[in-house]
Amino acid sequence: MPNRVASESPGRSRAVIHGGVVTAVVYGEKDPSLYVQARAALADLDRLLGELGSAKSKVLTATAYITDMTAKPEFNRAWDEWVDPDAAPVRACFGVALDGDTLIEIIATAEA
Amino acid sequence: MPNRVASESPGRSRAVIHGGVVTAVVYGEKDPSLYVQARAALADLDRLLGELGSAKSKVLTATAYITDMTAKPEFNRAWDEWVDPDAAPVRACFGVALDGDTLIEIIATAEA
Amino acid sequence: MPNRVASESPGRSRAVIHGGVVTAVVYGEKDPSLYVQARAALADLDRLLGELGSAKSKVLTATAYITDMTAKPEFNRAWDEWVDPDAAPVRACFGVALDGDTLIEIIATAEA
Repeated sequence: MPNRVASESPGRSRAVIHGGVVTAVVYGEKDPSLYVQARAALADLDRLLGELGSAKSKVLTATAYITDMTAKPEFNRAWDEWVDPDAAPVRACFGVALDGDTLIEIIATAEA
Repeated sequence: MPNRVASESPGRSRAVIHGGVVTAVVYGEKDPSLYVQARAALADLDRLLGELGSAKSKVLTATAYITDMTAKPEFNRAWDEWVDPDAAPVRACFGVALDGDTLIEIIATAEA
Repeated sequence: MPNRVASESPGRSRAVIHGGVVTAVVYGEKDPSLYVQARAALADLDRLLGELGSAKSKVLTATAYITDMTAKPEFNRAWDEWVDPDAAPVRACFGVALDGDTLIEIIATAEA
């Protein structure tokens, strides 16, 4: 099992594992719908966790950063469809500025 | 000892414990004063930490998200009244958008 | 080795170590250039990590909070000059409000 998942950009990783905890960052892009971007980001999270031996059912925390707080219900919808109700993470959601056409970025930690 | 504290909403926990570290999220609501909301959030943090066998004196990090950076002195006042000076956490404070009438949300980690 | 690095303000630490992980917060100030502030913050991170027995090559995650997302390329430049390409951290960058003349604040975690 690797201890990092590289990103397309040198000097940044998508996920790292240390001390039994995976930390991963995922984000949406292009699509104008927060719901669509959130779904894509969460699917990407599943993939990254899998690459490091973790899974949705082991997520501990998820902090979502969105560009438009009034669209939060769209993130909630994607989250509720995605989350394992028997392993509910600590979750927070903040409105911030993001780069380019990204509407959501999520930092998650999970048990390895 | 449980390893999570459930929230009122399915799919979200208020606190989780793993690998000897508790992570908890707390927030204020309703009251128009950031000071009052911050006090309530920190009191709630005490309660959550206690439910998972931790305490104020074991807090490692606290990241506060507030909606109005010009009101930060009110958060500082609540913090200074609350914090254990012999166990000062790493602390950061950022201005973001929050949902509803919430003026402050804090993510904290603590030794279990 | 201490388990915390104190800040100038009581009740806040600059860095803390627990369970083999260092968490540190660094920030820029005064200079009007984000690039200059980011360089100073990353140099300060090197110093804090060193005080707790860690190093740049052991950084796991870095979350940067900047006040002007349009200036992100300046942070990227400082980051790319600083980062150990063989130990690329998970990195995220969010636009938020910060206090005073600070243009960037970074929360980083590192293997101890």
